[in-house]
Amino acid sequence: MASPANSDRKIITGPAGYVLEDVPHLSDYIPSLPTYPNPLQDNPAYSVVKQYFVDEDDTIPHKIVVHPDTPRGTHFRRAGPRQRVYFEPDDVLACIVTCGGLCPGLNTVTREIVCGLAYMYGVKRILGIDGGYRGFYAKNTVPLDPKVVNDIHKRGGTVLGTSRGGHDTAKIVDSIQDRGINQVYIIGGDGTQKGAAVIFEEIRRRGLKVAVAGIPKTIDNDIPVIDRSFGFDTAVEEAQRAINAAHVEATSTENGIGLVKLMGRYSGFIAMHATLASRDVDCCLIPESPFYLEGEGGLFEFIEKRLKENGHMVIVIAEGAGQELLSESMQSMTLKDASGNKLLHDIGLWISHRIKDHFAKKMTINLKYIDPTYMIRAIPSNASDNVYCTLLAQSAVHGAMAGYTGFTVGLVNGRHSYIPFYRITEKQNEVVITDRMWARLLSSTNQPSFMNHKEVSPEKKDEGAGKMTWIPENGQVGDQEEAVNISV
Amino acid sequence: MASPANSDRKIITGPAGYVLEDVPHLSDYIPSLPTYPNPLQDNPAYSVVKQYFVDEDDTIPHKIVVHPDTPRGTHFRRAGPRQRVYFEPDDVLACIVTCGGLCPGLNTVTREIVCGLAYMYGVKRILGIDGGYRGFYAKNTVPLDPKVVNDIHKRGGTVLGTSRGGHDTAKIVDSIQDRGINQVYIIGGDGTQKGAAVIFEEIRRRGLKVAVAGIPKTIDNDIPVIDRSFGFDTAVEEAQRAINAAHVEATSTENGIGLVKLMGRYSGFIAMHATLASRDVDCCLIPESPFYLEGEGGLFEFIEKRLKENGHMVIVIAEGAGQELLSESMQSMTLKDASGNKLLHDIGLWISHRIKDHFAKKMTINLKYIDPTYMIRAIPSNASDNVYCTLLAQSAVHGAMAGYTGFTVGLVNGRHSYIPFYRITEKQNEVVITDRMWARLLSSTNQPSFMNHKEVSPEKKDEGAGKMTWIPENGQVGDQEEAVNISV
Amino acid sequence: MASPANSDRKIITGPAGYVLEDVPHLSDYIPSLPTYPNPLQDNPAYSVVKQYFVDEDDTIPHKIVVHPDTPRGTHFRRAGPRQRVYFEPDDVLACIVTCGGLCPGLNTVTREIVCGLAYMYGVKRILGIDGGYRGFYAKNTVPLDPKVVNDIHKRGGTVLGTSRGGHDTAKIVDSIQDRGINQVYIIGGDGTQKGAAVIFEEIRRRGLKVAVAGIPKTIDNDIPVIDRSFGFDTAVEEAQRAINAAHVEATSTENGIGLVKLMGRYSGFIAMHATLASRDVDCCLIPESPFYLEGEGGLFEFIEKRLKENGHMVIVIAEGAGQELLSESMQSMTLKDASGNKLLHDIGLWISHRIKDHFAKKMTINLKYIDPTYMIRAIPSNASDNVYCTLLAQSAVHGAMAGYTGFTVGLVNGRHSYIPFYRITEKQNEVVITDRMWARLLSSTNQPSFMNHKEVSPEKKDEGAGKMTWIPENGQVGDQEEAVNISV
Amino acid sequence: MASPANSDRKIITGPAGYVLEDVPHLSDYIPSLPTYPNPLQDNPAYSVVKQYFVDEDDTIPHKIVVHPDTPRGTHFRRAGPRQRVYFEPDDVLACIVTCGGLCPGLNTVTREIVCGLAYMYGVKRILGIDGGYRGFYAKNTVPLDPKVVNDIHKRGGTVLGTSRGGHDTAKIVDSIQDRGINQVYIIGGDGTQKGAAVIFEEIRRRGLKVAVAGIPKTIDNDIPVIDRSFGFDTAVEEAQRAINAAHVEATSTENGIGLVKLMGRYSGFIAMHATLASRDVDCCLIPESPFYLEGEGGLFEFIEKRLKENGHMVIVIAEGAGQELLSESMQSMTLKDASGNKLLHDIGLWISHRIKDHFAKKMTINLKYIDPTYMIRAIPSNASDNVYCTLLAQSAVHGAMAGYTGFTVGLVNGRHSYIPFYRITEKQNEVVITDRMWARLLSSTNQPSFMNHKEVSPEKKDEGAGKMTWIPENGQVGDQEEAVNISV
Repeated sequence: MASPANSDRKIITGPAGYVLEDVPHLSDYIPSLPTYPNPLQDNPAYSVVKQYFVDEDDTIPHKIVVHPDTPRGTHFRRAGPRQRVYFEPDDVLACIVTCGGLCPGLNTVTREIVCGLAYMYGVKRILGIDGGYRGFYAKNTVPLDPKVVNDIHKRGGTVLGTSRGGHDTAKIVDSIQDRGINQVYIIGGDGTQKGAAVIFEEIRRRGLKVAVAGIPKTIDNDIPVIDRSFGFDTAVEEAQRAINAAHVEATSTENGIGLVKLMGRYSGFIAMHATLASRDVDCCLIPESPFYLEGEGGLFEFIEKRLKENGHMVIVIAEGAGQELLSESMQSMTLKDASGNKLLHDIGLWISHRIKDHFAKKMTINLKYIDPTYMIRAIPSNASDNVYCTLLAQSAVHGAMAGYTGFTVGLVNGRHSYIPFYRITEKQNEVVITDRMWARLLSSTNQPSFMNHKEVSPEKKDEGAGKMTWIPENGQVGDQEEAVNISV
Repeated sequence: MASPANSDRKIITGPAGYVLEDVPHLSDYIPSLPTYPNPLQDNPAYSVVKQYFVDEDDTIPHKIVVHPDTPRGTHFRRAGPRQRVYFEPDDVLACIVTCGGLCPGLNTVTREIVCGLAYMYGVKRILGIDGGYRGFYAKNTVPLDPKVVNDIHKRGGTVLGTSRGGHDTAKIVDSIQDRGINQVYIIGGDGTQKGAAVIFEEIRRRGLKVAVAGIPKTIDNDIPVIDRSFGFDTAVEEAQRAINAAHVEATSTENGIGLVKLMGRYSGFIAMHATLASRDVDCCLIPESPFYLEGEGGLFEFIEKRLKENGHMVIVIAEGAGQELLSESMQSMTLKDASGNKLLHDIGLWISHRIKDHFAKKMTINLKYIDPTYMIRAIPSNASDNVYCTLLAQSAVHGAMAGYTGFTVGLVNGRHSYIPFYRITEKQNEVVITDRMWARLLSSTNQPSFMNHKEVSPEKKDEGAGKMTWIPENGQVGDQEEAVNISV
Repeated sequence: MASPANSDRKIITGPAGYVLEDVPHLSDYIPSLPTYPNPLQDNPAYSVVKQYFVDEDDTIPHKIVVHPDTPRGTHFRRAGPRQRVYFEPDDVLACIVTCGGLCPGLNTVTREIVCGLAYMYGVKRILGIDGGYRGFYAKNTVPLDPKVVNDIHKRGGTVLGTSRGGHDTAKIVDSIQDRGINQVYIIGGDGTQKGAAVIFEEIRRRGLKVAVAGIPKTIDNDIPVIDRSFGFDTAVEEAQRAINAAHVEATSTENGIGLVKLMGRYSGFIAMHATLASRDVDCCLIPESPFYLEGEGGLFEFIEKRLKENGHMVIVIAEGAGQELLSESMQSMTLKDASGNKLLHDIGLWISHRIKDHFAKKMTINLKYIDPTYMIRAIPSNASDNVYCTLLAQSAVHGAMAGYTGFTVGLVNGRHSYIPFYRITEKQNEVVITDRMWARLLSSTNQPSFMNHKEVSPEKKDEGAGKMTWIPENGQVGDQEEAVNISV
Repeated sequence: MASPANSDRKIITGPAGYVLEDVPHLSDYIPSLPTYPNPLQDNPAYSVVKQYFVDEDDTIPHKIVVHPDTPRGTHFRRAGPRQRVYFEPDDVLACIVTCGGLCPGLNTVTREIVCGLAYMYGVKRILGIDGGYRGFYAKNTVPLDPKVVNDIHKRGGTVLGTSRGGHDTAKIVDSIQDRGINQVYIIGGDGTQKGAAVIFEEIRRRGLKVAVAGIPKTIDNDIPVIDRSFGFDTAVEEAQRAINAAHVEATSTENGIGLVKLMGRYSGFIAMHATLASRDVDCCLIPESPFYLEGEGGLFEFIEKRLKENGHMVIVIAEGAGQELLSESMQSMTLKDASGNKLLHDIGLWISHRIKDHFAKKMTINLKYIDPTYMIRAIPSNASDNVYCTLLAQSAVHGAMAGYTGFTVGLVNGRHSYIPFYRITEKQNEVVITDRMWARLLSSTNQPSFMNHKEVSPEKKDEGAGKMTWIPENGQVGDQEEAVNISV
């Protein structure tokens, strides 16, 4: 899947360094589309609200920590209902698809797209695509209306079903075209949004009047630009249970170690926030901050020190942390089982073994390993995420009705915005370990920085900093602000 | 308590309409204060983080929905550690006081001020003032250190104790001076922050080197400028239980009505957010949106209509809603009891009676009234609020150490900022009922706008809109954006 | 509603004082009914279980604290499937009705009667009666099958709807007869079971082959003979939230008093158990133990003492406690409002006022009153109650299929039993305050016994103990054992 | 550790087959011990309760499903306070030790032994032994009083610390003797109670006036005679979270399988009860019911069938289930890793692999494995267990004060009883799979009985039934009733 060419990007500039990274619009490639007054004008609910509609010129700045003379920089278009829409409600045939792993809030987003279309715009034909992208090839779809989805936000998971992969752009667009669908709502993570981008490209290529809106879903919170992804807040909350349990286990035995693995394949946001929220964690290991086990300044040394001081400790590890250690280790170990050795790629199990091995020769420890991943993913969204999911869904609906396409919705500095696909798919959001948020964590846990390792010798540092993932490039330093943004 | 004279305000202007509303600093009124390098420089936790310290020029814009040529407008100073501090750790004697009603997170803020002072700056002498402002007159204080506060964030309430009122500026400042306290952390609501402002004024008048930092606390979320107040998220989450119960009661009987009273004396944020999060509420009544009971377009009519359609309904009412109705009614009723008639000022009880009375003559209804107020206030803060409280506390500590005073800390568009007292005390934040957030609620509940009432006749509307609280003045329209800000 | 004449009771005696209080059977009044092999014999699930069927002679003793030579005493028939049944599955038309106030577990019982009939016996026709007894007169019923009820146990309330009263025996039996219903499952409290008894009597009088089975429901746990009623465990658990909140409120202010009203109109079981489970309660007031407010040994004195010792206190009061005080007080107070004065009959509100009044003149107190009643009633049943409800439902189904009628099901000393209606309706279960369970509570709270009151002067005590409700009569002393039974 | 010789057992017989299996008493081996009036007589809390003390002759029958002419059978002594005690409060030096794995309620039992001794009997010297049996050899103990333990019941784990093993009878009794301890409270599982039995034997051998009381702890509920063990109810409740998550994961994907491992090394009570409570489980595998994977009637066939019918399934497996399969498999697999291959002895991981392997060749499945063990063990006890733990602790204290020793406390048919050690250690309680409770489960899940396996051929069945664990011997059939007992 190729990203859209830069030439396709809609960049609009203004005075004092103002830049608007705009989203595509159906009228960009279909000339003289008719427009209609927004049906919300007749909605009694809105009759009290003068100036309800979003001013066309409203935009939101990407960076807001400014000096008196900072250039204005990048902005995104503000989300919300427009005076005029590009679809007549009776003509709309919308579909919704959920892809990838579970995340709290999927059902709320689905519910609110349906209710938003039905109650705000009077749309009557809405389909659920069954089981992720591959559901587009299936014969059957699930008809959706407000009654069907009425209680689904109280359940975890996704009533539409989900799957990974299964993306065949041409077949999907064929299916959209064949069924006469003209609004496509795609809820999914990084890969899914990349898929949405190429679906949009193909639709534009074919010149179809079909709006494609993405709602970014990632429990890991690793989508750039936006403040946080839905479900993240719920996940951090639920992770507290596991950390509490680890803490109880650790404090009830001699040299007790409670080890909790949390989600985060490429980014440690859940681990970091869960650690900051808990105040019971002694060490937090994330993909962005390499660590090593043995020797001075290593993890084993720290564990020993902490156990001697306190008699117990709690470690939180993101699933993507220490993958370099793991792969090194895999090559030198004679680990095999009938079904392949995938099992031990679980960093939590692996590191549990390594810690037990190390201390087997030295001192009695009692390590308890907890993996709450599926118990966290499967719960319903909390109140905060429910409100957030509602507004995301409504923003997507307003955008599609207004003729925007190829866009994703998200909070930027607390304001709902429309963001072009390329901005959220071209890289992933990461914890910036040179940023203050991570410093706060280090200060709260007093864990080592794992900087003394041989591989981070001063010389190397100077010459090759740019190559190491955890030493931020200039570009990443510029993104510091975004990272802070996420949490607070 | 008089507000500081406008002449005392530190307003700094820059190009393109840039305005910085700065906070006071000890050096404003004490000349040639010595400064010291920030001890954080030696903290191993921060050694990884280059550029850890906040640039002196970093500021945060108040309004961020902009057009290409919007003037830059008001900014606030970014919170965070400074290169140089105005206190030597060994010289610091800090005190913490909590005032007013309970709010989830009080203990977390207390804990993190203590841990922040102790771990980040090496401060050793920290006192808890017992039982609110009046604790300043008491002989005893509570010595605080990280060990004492280690687990308090897992408990609701405040370990320091709290009370209302009891504010005598001169006596408090005498007490501060007598004990040699030089950092005062004041956690409390609107009235408390006003008290903090006059304490600061008196301290400045006496020329004392004492930093006064406020941490705004209001479960109602009615503090202006800031995105949200701590504990609010937890309160909205916990309110879901009561709404769920009301929904179950309502749906299990014929013409069941579940009525839930939520906090919100002057603002309906909790009621509004709890309603949006729940999706089970048929009607949400808040102080900002007047309503009436009888006649066309009134509440009774709506209840009857909804019961006939669905057989049940759920009503959420903020405690401050409908106070005009209540006071009218009180005058004409012969309600008395030995202890005064304060009891029936409870809008929830009052409206329950009125509804029962009204339908007694018409149809059988089953009304269940739930008041979860104290069960909501008393719970520990959730993960999201825990992280927020931690950062608020750390911001306050960084600010006081850096010599700022007479300031409050808070999130502004997702960034921690220092805000001068007058900005948060000169008025209260309210739900702007002409704003989109309220429109979203109306659209979700389909409740009447209560606009048809005789008193809101078209003529009156035209001539006197400015006088009615719920028709926003120009100033309030300008604040619309803030209101949106709060929730998402 | 008259109780069945004693002559109708089936009392069977045996050696060594053995007595069986048996339940009625269809064959008692319908001669030569055909029987059929129990379809469970062909159920693969039961193929492993030899001797699955309950032996006809199995009985359960009512009292089990025995001496070597105690007479064997009263027994009840053991519940469970019988070898032969009196209904062919295809002939069964069953109905289920839920009556009275909400109680956790109503939906689980409903679900399991449906699933039990369908899966164990292959019954296909099951009706839900809508909205309590009066639903029998309505035209419509709700068809029930395992699919319809699949998820209802996860919801609070009752999907069948409920109401109070509405009982007209003749009309109900007409409705049963007209619809061809031959198994009636009645879920409800004391009054409902009395209604079930007369329905059964009328059915017997008419000679109908209709089995009537009662499932006793009372969140108050005030049904005699049985160990505990379903939902009670869940209610006690949920009450902890309110007590915790009261404790937090009380400990966070000077002289804080947290007052929690719990269910229990005539019996204090929930209050007693919630108090014993919490360990944070200073005083527990229940209907069975009269108390007084003023003077030596009164409540006010105790409150003052406890506040002076600890600075705070938590009081739990059952809704039926102190009703004598309340009615006295009502007569002498000028309390009136437009809708009648029913409002202040709430003992919690009333006693809050009295406490505030009393201390208004003496010392500052901070009283917070919490009434969690509807939040407790409306929650879904917990795991323990779910299992219990399942077995109650299955026992009822086995009994009705086996031709028993006019019976209720319940745990007797941990064994599921069939109990004749009259045993559970002829009186209510109460906390026996001369029993050890109450002594344990007194010992845990150290509250006064309220025995010094003038009305309980020694002379009176001697002469008239039998007349005072809280001094147990002989009969009640004999029931002591039952009371202990309930809790543990 | 040898069991006490049968000759030491105190068996008392009476008329009609009455048998009392009594517990040892200090006066059995120490002649002419002085006794004292029970201090409870002066406790105001007990002044209302006439006949508070337990009648010496009160006993509780072990089996209560009876026929009119059943012999009376085994009884146990009723627990509770006695008129006269064998210790003067000032002379008592009590100690408490917690051993083995965590279980909800450990802290409540500890708290209530302390409070019971202090408040009921005025005992002032109570020690906590640190970290299980081996804490007896350590220098330090933890002084305990009601203030220290006041809030511990709200925390999970054990504040005393725990460990496995470490039992050296002579050293422990030396330590008891050296410190002058005369009451020993031992909270622990099967092995721990066996240890307590030999400690008691040694103390008796030495002729010491030391009472030894055991409080049986096993989250698995595998202790015979007693109705249920403390913490079990909490564990079953908490297990629902994991099952719910598994259900959500399973229903959100195509052919989703949610697999939950629950505690139960030798008995499947938690798995069985959690399954019965949830109603969402398709298959429950426990140690008592062998199963096989391949071929007709095997697990794979059942999974395939259920997936084809429903598209998803949930499996609950007790940790001790299928160990035979596992050990067979281990021998034939080339599984090795550096730290030994203990890892894959986890039946949950192992069976996940086997299922994935099997279907890899056939159909796409999505299996999610959840192991909530440590999250369940570590939570605080719920209200029901809190009350139970309180009464267990008080029973133990009453027993020790009354001079009983070598006993354990527990509920027998809902009554608190004193049981001689040998009755609870001579075998473990198991789910009787020919009993009705298991039949109920089979009927609820409709899972196969796994009876068709070749190894259970009819011939074998006839000749060797006694050897197979899951075909009950006569003795076990006789225990059926106990098993039912446990759950309800």
